[in-house]
Amino acid sequence: MWVEPYPDISPEKPLFLCILANTGTARIPGISAAGKSPEMTDYTPAADAELVETGRVFSISEPAMCPSGAPTPAVLTRASILLTGIPCLFINAGLNVKPKVPFIDLNAHPGEDIRKTRAVTDAADIYRTSADLGRKLSKLSDLVIIGESVPGGTTTAMGVMRALGYDGRVSSSFPDNPVGIKERVVNEGMKASGIAFGSLKNQPLRAVECMGDPMMAAAAGLVDGLGKKTILAGGTQMVSVLSIIKALGLKRDVSIATTCYVADDKSANFREMTELLGYPGFAADPGFANCAVTGLQMYERGEVKEGVGAGGAMFAAAMLGFSQKEFREKCVEVYRSVFSIS
Amino acid sequence: MWVEPYPDISPEKPLFLCILANTGTARIPGISAAGKSPEMTDYTPAADAELVETGRVFSISEPAMCPSGAPTPAVLTRASILLTGIPCLFINAGLNVKPKVPFIDLNAHPGEDIRKTRAVTDAADIYRTSADLGRKLSKLSDLVIIGESVPGGTTTAMGVMRALGYDGRVSSSFPDNPVGIKERVVNEGMKASGIAFGSLKNQPLRAVECMGDPMMAAAAGLVDGLGKKTILAGGTQMVSVLSIIKALGLKRDVSIATTCYVADDKSANFREMTELLGYPGFAADPGFANCAVTGLQMYERGEVKEGVGAGGAMFAAAMLGFSQKEFREKCVEVYRSVFSIS
Repeated sequence: MWVEPYPDISPEKPLFLCILANTGTARIPGISAAGKSPEMTDYTPAADAELVETGRVFSISEPAMCPSGAPTPAVLTRASILLTGIPCLFINAGLNVKPKVPFIDLNAHPGEDIRKTRAVTDAADIYRTSADLGRKLSKLSDLVIIGESVPGGTTTAMGVMRALGYDGRVSSSFPDNPVGIKERVVNEGMKASGIAFGSLKNQPLRAVECMGDPMMAAAAGLVDGLGKKTILAGGTQMVSVLSIIKALGLKRDVSIATTCYVADDKSANFREMTELLGYPGFAADPGFANCAVTGLQMYERGEVKEGVGAGGAMFAAAMLGFSQKEFREKCVEVYRSVFSIS
Repeated sequence: MWVEPYPDISPEKPLFLCILANTGTARIPGISAAGKSPEMTDYTPAADAELVETGRVFSISEPAMCPSGAPTPAVLTRASILLTGIPCLFINAGLNVKPKVPFIDLNAHPGEDIRKTRAVTDAADIYRTSADLGRKLSKLSDLVIIGESVPGGTTTAMGVMRALGYDGRVSSSFPDNPVGIKERVVNEGMKASGIAFGSLKNQPLRAVECMGDPMMAAAAGLVDGLGKKTILAGGTQMVSVLSIIKALGLKRDVSIATTCYVADDKSANFREMTELLGYPGFAADPGFANCAVTGLQMYERGEVKEGVGAGGAMFAAAMLGFSQKEFREKCVEVYRSVFSIS
């Protein structure tokens, strides 16, 4: 099975949501590989949405990629959307650069640098608004898969998990996880907010406000409002959302689906954390070792790993009966089309 | 029956959409009663969305109403949403003032004054984007009701119908329809665009570009993309959308639902036009003559008449089995809550 465990469900009206946000944290040099430079990470969520929706990008001159040249995981997500026909809606949870494709606007502000006192000033508003949106969407869909594109998001994830009392070790879009920088930034942020490890374990939205990013408040609010079956599509960033949901005491049927690259990342502890938190976890392997395309093979060497809901997008493809080979071939097709390689 | 003919359908997953747009045309003095002054009409769609969603308004100090004090039809729409539980999503098809509640953003520009050469510069883009959105939503909903809040929209409706070769006489939010001003503005607009009665009958999107507003392109695009059963919720503005759909040659299962106030408006020709165009029409009577509340009684004297999908909202309530009395009582409850009258 290319997705483990096999997603043995047959929803009638699945829906894919992708939450987009920017933060000041992503602009700290060395934090994020989701963009060719720290400043360019502002454009990454918009470009990812454009790529998933249209196969092209409008907000920047070329599709988002790592400094190494590995392509954005939006390629994987688009492949799944094309294969499965699942409708995909984007959510602006706080962007400096808005995508040139339709999106749902939550009227949220971009996140600040977590080294400031407050990183997400409107966390409670975002949560409430998202819960309202979730309640509406629950009347239209019986399975919602929630992905994200938030550069710098593993650092905020680490920050929130620490504030909630978890040693959540986070993954990275770099092959060599810049753990030292993340630790330093998180420590500075906790100091600025006057908090310690676990000191906000009963105030998860306050933890987001101090140390998180707007996506977390949006994702947790959606899970609350949706009520029914939800799949968080992401790696350690979505683990931090699980830790928030647990701390909020929400009783919801929620699982997490990520790529094998995050699940097997030794610098992180994805499996350990999902088990500790008590939520079902899925890991998907696109089998890019057998891939004719160099850009996608780079994933096998630890580049990029996850994002734009790529793991959940594979979960969706497997759920609807598509094989690893069919998915991989669609990825190659999308990659060649996007990067004009024949 | 308070809705004629009775809406004898039972959709599984109905959805209500409300398209919001501003135009320069609305700022022409005497054109629109949808706001206390011509400048204030910029705030009306945002305030309407806020009222439907939350029962309060944030973008202005008090809810949108006519200069006379008659309340916005958003009151009727909120009553229906509360009764039926149908999810409602707002669409920004070109706003100067965005609502402080979530909305789907089409990346569209507000419309210009139709006395300029081009009123909707991005009509084709809006149409295409909306059709894409419609295709997604068609996978989630089997009946979509599409309303609008576009001040000044009956003048642009008249303009587009003239360009397409129809003597579409339009209704008004004023009790005394300012037909003379509308005629003058439409004539000036046709002159500026170098077009004559019927000269664009084979170019409906060009007619929107010259004489229309962004809502029309969005509504027609949605109908195209949705494919399945759609109800246009509105009066003569939505008749203009029907004329566009017909001119485009779209074969779709589309109907129109409005209030009795528009259907029976002698200054307009709603019934004649829907018959001529060949689409089923529904008219809904909330029975406000029997209403304890002065503000709503004003509708019986020809104030406001329609907007924010009020006619379609009543269609939805009747479709789900609610009586005129239940609907009216919910309107009174919403009105009293919104205007803090006990």
